[in-house]
Amino acid sequence: MSTIHIALLGYGTVGKGVYQTIKTHQKRFKAILGKEVKIEAVLVKNLEKHQLPDPDVILTNKFEDIISLPKLDVVIDAIVGKQPGFSYLSQAIKRGCHIITANKQMFAHYGRELLSLAEKHGVSVGFEATVAGGIPVIQTLRKLLSVNHIKKVHGILNGTSNFILTKMREEGCSFSDALSLAQEKGYAEADPTNDVEGFDAFYKAMILSEVVYGKQPDWEKVRKQGISSITLEQIELFSKFGLRFKHVASLEKTTKGIHCSVKPVLVSSSHPLFHVEDVQNAVSIDADIVGNISLQGPGAGMFPTASAIVEDLIQLETERARPDEGADHASFAHEPLLTWVLYGEVKNLEIPESIEIIGKINAKALLVLAKEESIENLSNKIKGITVYQLLGDFTFSGTEESRFPSAHSITGS
Amino acid sequence: MSTIHIALLGYGTVGKGVYQTIKTHQKRFKAILGKEVKIEAVLVKNLEKHQLPDPDVILTNKFEDIISLPKLDVVIDAIVGKQPGFSYLSQAIKRGCHIITANKQMFAHYGRELLSLAEKHGVSVGFEATVAGGIPVIQTLRKLLSVNHIKKVHGILNGTSNFILTKMREEGCSFSDALSLAQEKGYAEADPTNDVEGFDAFYKAMILSEVVYGKQPDWEKVRKQGISSITLEQIELFSKFGLRFKHVASLEKTTKGIHCSVKPVLVSSSHPLFHVEDVQNAVSIDADIVGNISLQGPGAGMFPTASAIVEDLIQLETERARPDEGADHASFAHEPLLTWVLYGEVKNLEIPESIEIIGKINAKALLVLAKEESIENLSNKIKGITVYQLLGDFTFSGTEESRFPSAHSITGS
Repeated sequence: MSTIHIALLGYGTVGKGVYQTIKTHQKRFKAILGKEVKIEAVLVKNLEKHQLPDPDVILTNKFEDIISLPKLDVVIDAIVGKQPGFSYLSQAIKRGCHIITANKQMFAHYGRELLSLAEKHGVSVGFEATVAGGIPVIQTLRKLLSVNHIKKVHGILNGTSNFILTKMREEGCSFSDALSLAQEKGYAEADPTNDVEGFDAFYKAMILSEVVYGKQPDWEKVRKQGISSITLEQIELFSKFGLRFKHVASLEKTTKGIHCSVKPVLVSSSHPLFHVEDVQNAVSIDADIVGNISLQGPGAGMFPTASAIVEDLIQLETERARPDEGADHASFAHEPLLTWVLYGEVKNLEIPESIEIIGKINAKALLVLAKEESIENLSNKIKGITVYQLLGDFTFSGTEESRFPSAHSITGS
Repeated sequence: MSTIHIALLGYGTVGKGVYQTIKTHQKRFKAILGKEVKIEAVLVKNLEKHQLPDPDVILTNKFEDIISLPKLDVVIDAIVGKQPGFSYLSQAIKRGCHIITANKQMFAHYGRELLSLAEKHGVSVGFEATVAGGIPVIQTLRKLLSVNHIKKVHGILNGTSNFILTKMREEGCSFSDALSLAQEKGYAEADPTNDVEGFDAFYKAMILSEVVYGKQPDWEKVRKQGISSITLEQIELFSKFGLRFKHVASLEKTTKGIHCSVKPVLVSSSHPLFHVEDVQNAVSIDADIVGNISLQGPGAGMFPTASAIVEDLIQLETERARPDEGADHASFAHEPLLTWVLYGEVKNLEIPESIEIIGKINAKALLVLAKEESIENLSNKIKGITVYQLLGDFTFSGTEESRFPSAHSITGS
């Protein structure tokens, strides 16, 4: 069986995620590509800080060791900063390697150069991971673009900023307290400037502009503003009117050229970005034929980003992934407990032990926790009761008739 | 310049949308594919009911006229029902044509057969338009599947049902009144059974199952329930607890096989499907590596569906659509009026005539309508005022200090 030989630049959060994902997906690569994927070497800055789980993978701090590997098909870039990333990837392309990158700052600066260099050398560039982590924004835009003109793109592209704004509103805390919480949770770096002053979202917006309009606006003319000046007082005032602050990157083509801004805006509940909370990212696309499409998901993190990178790797080789036919990954071994509402004449209903009553919503509705099987058994026995599954988290605070006076917070499936 | 020769089956809403979209996208086809796309013939049931805008396109009610066209590369299926769609497309594949279909009932029954027949004959099958209209669900699932196992898929796949449930809750009307409204607006057919009893969502779920798990569950074992039994009383009761009824198709792989249901469920605000309202469709995907991704957009309609079909057509020929470089489609010729909030010491602020005041939120915040240019001019002149753009619809009902006592409903950009 033939092998795809990989070099990985960087072994931080994203690098480790890619390493592990490639390791655990060998069966999948064989099934889809008919090939093995082997990481040959990993480049790090400081050799003493890192150790690889596999002794046959080279760990090096010299790019020369990477570029002179006897076998090398794909270079994956999981480092940050404009340089040396750009120089490394240029050399890789010139050697005839495909490249895949998650490095937004570098790609915002040099994406166009890398793409044309790659075209010249007949290799591919994957950069889905540079924008909105695990959400397939680049691919979706490309698909829409084949038929549609894209009128506008609005995106929440920085998870840390969105987390801070959400926490300020929900917990009534200050910007600095929310920032500390984001740092505790590992969302924000020790130096949060890149996130909260809008640089990260700006780079991503520039990459989107390149994808959507084939060029970037003049960087000097882009209004770039972070969220550090937003006060709790402002958030609370606008909350009363149903408005939320979101940090939004906007792209639009006008008669004057590409108009782009990256700034806090107020969003009402009718807008697709209103409900995007915590570290989630989202992109709302206005296309002329299809209308508005919005995508939401994890914008960063070890595995979402790794997933985007490995998806790009597979796409280099094949355009059609096969369905998930393996029998080895049923999503749970035991039937889970789900949340249900029993509706109807529930007053004198005999509830078997396998069904746990969480609360009585009113005389006609009962909230229960049970396996699907138990609910089916019950449904077959009783008439006049309708059963509804409940999706999403739900805190039942009880009614005056509630059997359980304390609040129950449960999670639907 | 070479030409792609097309036959179109059906000239209803979707068929007309495809016809027009192909007509208006000739420049785009030339730019992306280096080819012209020409509709050679259109198949209809009743010749007297239809007239084509172009005299050189054949209008016929005999499929033999289609399949015996001297030049034929792609057959696009925009008719409904299992037959004769399946038989027509099989013949097209055997002739060596690519096929693209929007026919969910047919594809739920015969998708697998058509796909393997197409593989045998070395042609492609596009079916993005069968599920969730303009939302690229099939492509996104395929991309995720290359790396992820899909644990669960929950989807709002029938726009008519979602519209009815939304209207009942919002307007407090009965099922039959909401259905009449859906029929007035052209969302629901004269015979709404297919939509409101869950058949339409069921077919789409079967197609998704085929994509995700490579097979379908036993149709007899799928719980299929529509929304016709949901009463206003139920909707109002659960609304009080923050729960909404949504008609949801669910797919999940368990140790016992593929578990699928199509039924009304209760959804809380933490779930991605809660905010999907009116005729919108959405799909929420739980993948093992990337986490939860959700997509939302128009699930049906003339142009969204046509867009999905024409995107498939382009994808047959090229995997990479180019960016939107043309200068001929700036999204507006004149700068639009946008909504803004001026925040700070607005009390004695001189507002130029180009900025229209909508209302005073409080002593520190003013709601205005203006072109971006006017706002920039103002910002350059004044200190201590922060300007936030407002996205989404917003009804300003005024405060006790409001200058305008009547409610203003405005639309942000």
